[in-house]
Amino acid sequence: MPIENAPFSQTEYDRRIALTRGAMANAGLDALFVTDPSNQAWLTGYDGWSFYVHQGVLLRMDGEPVWWGRHMDMLGGRRTCWMHDDNVLGYGDHYVQSTVRHPMQDLAARIAAMGLDRARIGVEMENYYYSAKAHAVLGAELPDATLIDATALVNWQRIVKSDEELAFIRKAARISDKIVQTAIDRAEPGLRKNDLVADIFHAGITGVDEIWGDYPAIVPLTPSGLDATAAHLTWNGDPMRSGEATFFELSGCYRRYHAPLCRTVFLGTPPQEMLDAEKAQLEGIAAGLDAARAGNRTCDIANAFIDVLKTHGIHREGRCGYPIGLSYPPDWGERTASIRPEDETVLQPGMTFHFMPALWMDTWGLETTETILITETGPAEPFCTVERKLFVKP
Amino acid sequence: MPIENAPFSQTEYDRRIALTRGAMANAGLDALFVTDPSNQAWLTGYDGWSFYVHQGVLLRMDGEPVWWGRHMDMLGGRRTCWMHDDNVLGYGDHYVQSTVRHPMQDLAARIAAMGLDRARIGVEMENYYYSAKAHAVLGAELPDATLIDATALVNWQRIVKSDEELAFIRKAARISDKIVQTAIDRAEPGLRKNDLVADIFHAGITGVDEIWGDYPAIVPLTPSGLDATAAHLTWNGDPMRSGEATFFELSGCYRRYHAPLCRTVFLGTPPQEMLDAEKAQLEGIAAGLDAARAGNRTCDIANAFIDVLKTHGIHREGRCGYPIGLSYPPDWGERTASIRPEDETVLQPGMTFHFMPALWMDTWGLETTETILITETGPAEPFCTVERKLFVKP
Repeated sequence: MPIENAPFSQTEYDRRIALTRGAMANAGLDALFVTDPSNQAWLTGYDGWSFYVHQGVLLRMDGEPVWWGRHMDMLGGRRTCWMHDDNVLGYGDHYVQSTVRHPMQDLAARIAAMGLDRARIGVEMENYYYSAKAHAVLGAELPDATLIDATALVNWQRIVKSDEELAFIRKAARISDKIVQTAIDRAEPGLRKNDLVADIFHAGITGVDEIWGDYPAIVPLTPSGLDATAAHLTWNGDPMRSGEATFFELSGCYRRYHAPLCRTVFLGTPPQEMLDAEKAQLEGIAAGLDAARAGNRTCDIANAFIDVLKTHGIHREGRCGYPIGLSYPPDWGERTASIRPEDETVLQPGMTFHFMPALWMDTWGLETTETILITETGPAEPFCTVERKLFVKP
Repeated sequence: MPIENAPFSQTEYDRRIALTRGAMANAGLDALFVTDPSNQAWLTGYDGWSFYVHQGVLLRMDGEPVWWGRHMDMLGGRRTCWMHDDNVLGYGDHYVQSTVRHPMQDLAARIAAMGLDRARIGVEMENYYYSAKAHAVLGAELPDATLIDATALVNWQRIVKSDEELAFIRKAARISDKIVQTAIDRAEPGLRKNDLVADIFHAGITGVDEIWGDYPAIVPLTPSGLDATAAHLTWNGDPMRSGEATFFELSGCYRRYHAPLCRTVFLGTPPQEMLDAEKAQLEGIAAGLDAARAGNRTCDIANAFIDVLKTHGIHREGRCGYPIGLSYPPDWGERTASIRPEDETVLQPGMTFHFMPALWMDTWGLETTETILITETGPAEPFCTVERKLFVKP
């Protein structure tokens, strides 16, 4: 059923289904049950803040996918999924957060009714929205089926973006530019951090012209000073202080697509070691972008960056990035490839990454990052335009 | 180690640990591993947007709890947890979203090193942040331990709030009043929904006076017209229209504590059936509040509401509410008791619920709700002050 104002063309959804079925065939699956909200949206268009109850998409080797969730969310499914209404199913509210019933009992009965009670069914064992209990109940209710770990099977199909998807990421990037610039412009000693975050939210959700802002999958991360030596602390009501660096880890979001962008602001005069690190970081990012070419591997990006840092005497461990695009909380990464020395994913045109060569040191953090597109030829192209540097303000 | 500006007193954390250990003893557990971010924060103070990777709190029958997570988040743990630094542990980044290693391997080794390799260990089988894979790996790595489902064991200890917690919920309620009033004041035909949501976010995060706004565990839900017949659709860039109802399901948040509040705005002249439903709903809410007394049960609240609706010819199924307080995405409910006919939880003074007697009908939705406190004597007290009615604007 064509949905008014659907995000993507039916051709695009058909492409996604075909790719996923190819991977299912390779994995020897008869059916696949996906719980990752991003995978659900990517396959069916489903969009709602209902992933806190059990729901998912069942894809067989032919026919439309089936969206299944709480009855009251079935109505949202029928307003956002492209399938016919009889492929959008709901379970009763007495299953919700019950201590005596589990929604997977309802799902198992439906799977059995489809004749899949002896099938090989892929499930996403490593996903926020597929609990250990859900897996145990589904397995017990379908004793003759074989549940097979298909974690990230769909995610891997998402790694190369279509032109329709790239257009969404470009729109998200325009919002990212706006909100990072808002943060840089507004930061000053004495400003309460929550007031700054309020302005960031406002700028992001109003969006840019007709590009309305959706909620990003991660809230603004804006730690200052020693809090910025840790990666994921959120804000409070303390005022910004002179002599401290604050990093802004932000993303615009357009219809669930992201383009993360980080910049750091120092209020006052930065210590020399931070200026030295800035120089190393910028040189390392340039080397990383140059290595981010089709045919190279994800590790080549990480090693190019790490090698430059070494020449500046900085030892950097950990991941330097991940693929991005469509996402829901709690993470905007796609959880497939990683930009790190041990990852050998071959880069292809149309892949998009958050290249994230942040530095978290003993007394400060310095985040300068880019969301990048792997192109047909040449180095990666950043989606955003905010100047790449440490911003210093009085 | 006393944390500067910790949310709660050590006495309060000690109370929580003692309650939890009592429940552990009843369940015959030697140790408990909690992954629910709300439970982690409640026991240790840990606060960061890092729950998208594996982390948790291990509580034994004596000694401090141990917070365990990604190395870079260990630094955040040492800045937010009340325990000594050597009880805040980190695992290497090569475990993060790896296809060949799992963080539970690191956790299992630490558990074994504590002498718990043959212990009875509680785990939260039904939690967003304890995946089927995590459970499988932990079980395989600790073959002589017994993993026991302890879902909601900690959540149930949270259901009666301390005075310190009630003070936080009262602060959150002041923000809830502000943002719901902002939505009512700003709503008008032609206003883009995302621009309205931007104002709601701004009002919520700036907060009220010294009460700075934290991020609520659910984004603003603000659907209009037919979208409001579904419960959980998020906003887009469409303008608000005359002749449509919009419900606002919002919560202020103060240091992770919530006080959800919903009101509905009709632009234009509401249909008579909606005005009739408003009358029934308000009468039903009054009956529910009157039934929400210490010694009564959760089902008494639901039945009081449902019985009034019946006299008005409205059939209402599903849950009518849930306990609230400390929470992280994707849900602000505590996932223990439910206000519904089959739930017989006995009400105690200090319990707090989002009493949520919303109506989702065929062509419109009407949400009018209250966050309530069960008192020593008499009916429940709402935390918020926005007038309880359907708001009608030209």
